[in-house]
Amino acid sequence: AEEAVALRAQAEAVRRLKQDKADPDEIAKEVAKLLEMKAQLGGDEGKPKFVLKTPKGTRDYGPKQMAIRERVFNAIISCFKRHGAEVIDTPVFELKETLTGKYGEDSKLIYDLKDQGGELLSLRYDLTVPFARYLAMNKITNIKRYHIAKVYRRDNPAMTRGRYREFYQCDFDIAGQFDPMIPDAECLKIVHEILSDLQLGDFVVKVNDRRILDGMFAVCGVPDSKFRTICSSVDKLDKVPWEEVRSEMVGEKGLSPEAADRIGEYVQLHGGLDLIEQLLQDPKLSQNKLAKEGLGDMKLLFEYLTLFGITGKSSFDLSLARGLDYYTGVIFEAVLLQQENEHVEELVGMGSVAGGGRYDGLVGMFDPKGRKVPCVGVSIGIERIFSILEQRLEASEEKIRTTETQVLVASAQKKLLEERLRLISELWDAGIKAEMLYKKNPKLLNQLQYCEDTGIPLVAIVGEQELKDGVVKLRIVATREEVNIRRESLVEEIRTRTSQ
Amino acid sequence: AEEAVALRAQAEAVRRLKQDKADPDEIAKEVAKLLEMKAQLGGDEGKPKFVLKTPKGTRDYGPKQMAIRERVFNAIISCFKRHGAEVIDTPVFELKETLTGKYGEDSKLIYDLKDQGGELLSLRYDLTVPFARYLAMNKITNIKRYHIAKVYRRDNPAMTRGRYREFYQCDFDIAGQFDPMIPDAECLKIVHEILSDLQLGDFVVKVNDRRILDGMFAVCGVPDSKFRTICSSVDKLDKVPWEEVRSEMVGEKGLSPEAADRIGEYVQLHGGLDLIEQLLQDPKLSQNKLAKEGLGDMKLLFEYLTLFGITGKSSFDLSLARGLDYYTGVIFEAVLLQQENEHVEELVGMGSVAGGGRYDGLVGMFDPKGRKVPCVGVSIGIERIFSILEQRLEASEEKIRTTETQVLVASAQKKLLEERLRLISELWDAGIKAEMLYKKNPKLLNQLQYCEDTGIPLVAIVGEQELKDGVVKLRIVATREEVNIRRESLVEEIRTRTSQ
Repeated sequence: AEEAVALRAQAEAVRRLKQDKADPDEIAKEVAKLLEMKAQLGGDEGKPKFVLKTPKGTRDYGPKQMAIRERVFNAIISCFKRHGAEVIDTPVFELKETLTGKYGEDSKLIYDLKDQGGELLSLRYDLTVPFARYLAMNKITNIKRYHIAKVYRRDNPAMTRGRYREFYQCDFDIAGQFDPMIPDAECLKIVHEILSDLQLGDFVVKVNDRRILDGMFAVCGVPDSKFRTICSSVDKLDKVPWEEVRSEMVGEKGLSPEAADRIGEYVQLHGGLDLIEQLLQDPKLSQNKLAKEGLGDMKLLFEYLTLFGITGKSSFDLSLARGLDYYTGVIFEAVLLQQENEHVEELVGMGSVAGGGRYDGLVGMFDPKGRKVPCVGVSIGIERIFSILEQRLEASEEKIRTTETQVLVASAQKKLLEERLRLISELWDAGIKAEMLYKKNPKLLNQLQYCEDTGIPLVAIVGEQELKDGVVKLRIVATREEVNIRRESLVEEIRTRTSQ
Repeated sequence: AEEAVALRAQAEAVRRLKQDKADPDEIAKEVAKLLEMKAQLGGDEGKPKFVLKTPKGTRDYGPKQMAIRERVFNAIISCFKRHGAEVIDTPVFELKETLTGKYGEDSKLIYDLKDQGGELLSLRYDLTVPFARYLAMNKITNIKRYHIAKVYRRDNPAMTRGRYREFYQCDFDIAGQFDPMIPDAECLKIVHEILSDLQLGDFVVKVNDRRILDGMFAVCGVPDSKFRTICSSVDKLDKVPWEEVRSEMVGEKGLSPEAADRIGEYVQLHGGLDLIEQLLQDPKLSQNKLAKEGLGDMKLLFEYLTLFGITGKSSFDLSLARGLDYYTGVIFEAVLLQQENEHVEELVGMGSVAGGGRYDGLVGMFDPKGRKVPCVGVSIGIERIFSILEQRLEASEEKIRTTETQVLVASAQKKLLEERLRLISELWDAGIKAEMLYKKNPKLLNQLQYCEDTGIPLVAIVGEQELKDGVVKLRIVATREEVNIRRESLVEEIRTRTSQ
């Protein structure tokens, strides 16, 4: 775009010089400059000019990024499978009305499709609403499933910090009517397992309950009609200090200063079973039905977390609110803690890397008869995790392989293309991962260099003498050792040498 | 929608009865019926009425479908990896202009996003154009990559035959300047490997070359300006007989009957190296530079296919044209052959299950300086394959597991929830795939039934006596055998018993 502006300016300059009947030499010079600029802009051959980019807030994954992504996915998927989850998939878009009224203020971030005749569609905003739609549509009242897929938000991207408009969510949810807090505790166990497995450094999982929040608002004197908006103010406490949140509550949202101050006292509290016990004795909170219910369940939850051995990294935190409208009970969010000996920038504004909670009313919004299916789930924020691992890998200079090729089929002399094709075909048919250079007569040096560059550990070299002797020369790239292997033993030899 | 029509009809009936001052009892009866219909339509509690469905031409994948899908993906991915491919991913949408001018008549099938301010976007129509954009944008001149992702076409869906508006493509492409036909032959080898591996029954891969087609059109007297449109008529030969195609050429497209008849003679030809040799001697074709080039390369290709041992299922077929504009050389398409002893309907209209070809000009369309990167690739049509396997599985009554759970943690008596939680946590931490029922006091029978239903092979039963003795009772579901295992040996025992 900058070049286009410069081009227009230059065209204007030429026009003026001509208009002013300037020195013909000067005009010629400026015209030449103009033509050169045009050529650089790719205007040759009358080709249409493309802006060569991906849409705002999106990116390609090259082979190296994919290799890291697969590692992270594998860790997450094996955890989900360890917990007995099935897997489902849903379309990338839903009927627009399916998403309507589920996301509160965030609805403005939904991508709509153009009306091209037919149904009005929107890209999914998360995987939770499609999951609820799937349950209601198929009348499923009991399932434990995971779903890993891209979701879409027309948000302000901050790509270096892992905030994209197209990004993956990795969701695990348990739907069904069960005894309290058992599935909820499993969701928290899953967060612990995944974050530990990925070795992202120290973390804490903040836990709260929408019922405790609502009860707290009630006893602090927040009018019912202001619960949601005050809740979204509280939600900002992980980013801005209490004083700012308080002035938003009082100034913008018209809450009384006394109510705000009472909230201020509660939201600074965080702890474990002790704090829960203390609040169960709190003269005001204990009088509120919702808060009491929430605190009772929170106590049960922390007892289960104790059995799972994960209370050390779990914190009952009254400032945790979570933005989305559909939560009805336990909510939680995992945040990475600053590492002392790491670069500070790396984690600033990283926000949460996992979050979730209980949403007992969402499926009922889709069911024609309003039948409810209680659900609790967790969503892993893969892009942020991925950003951290990508930066770490770049800093470490670790070389990452992007293929799994076991052997390069090579030749030492010319005119052996047919023999290479014959051999590589044998290897493929035996299940060996093999490559060859797509040249009739490649130089041996280039073939060996290709192995060095791509990390292929073995080279199977065919030569005239080897063909006569019924052998293949197998070269081990790392040690430069070469051994003749009988053709019929080659597959077995490659398997042995490349099995970990 | 049907219910809505019935509802309106009933309301109209009530209105008429009232207008006609009919018997009050009859009116009351019909009103009651109307109210019941309204209630069934979910109008109670003033809830908004949802159409509970996925968008037209799309579907959810439940756990069973996902299990089949994963099997197919695994076969395809391991083949791509066997051939040394890296993997990339691109966004689901592209700038609208990136897709403009790439798909000829099919462009009308592209899904556009709504203009919500900012860039104009479209959902990707295939993976080939995004790949070309990726290469040009990153100045990559040499890569072998696969990409498995969903693409979007506003086509007329025929879902039972595996035709969707959202569907997966599994693409493998080789980009770079290489010696002729070596990468092209590898793409055909890949098609053979995948279709053989998936055991879909007999198949044939039709092969042709755009240059042979263009040369053929020229020597048959088709004017240059009609090449593309006549080519798209030829493309219909797999669905309609020659006579219909001929009358389209002559009637709709204004080709002379003589030219059409000359084309008719060529497009009926198919065979192998013999046919190629014969056409290389053809007095007309051999005089055409393009056709000669194409036939020369086709000969080379079939020599390589001979070395790969796959000429048996390869057919040089002059009627193969392929719809897309961007092909410049070899084109191919794999079709399943009718099985005699199978249900006929199953394969009717199944069309091709894989296709591809060479597109040497596409990357140059994106490069600002028009630099070309020759490419050849193959796309596997997973949805059709998936439809076949799904139907086959349904017919076979084979029971397919949708989880990998190794063991259910159960209890024989009440009040052992805490012990179950403790044990399952130990198992998860040791990497064992374990589940438990989310009930405080589940009946043993229900726990065993759950294993039967979901295929879990082992049950680890905690009871008071076992706790005292420091053992867990391990039950083998298939044989009902029960053995006491010392707690510290349990993980190892489960591993041994569930390793294949």
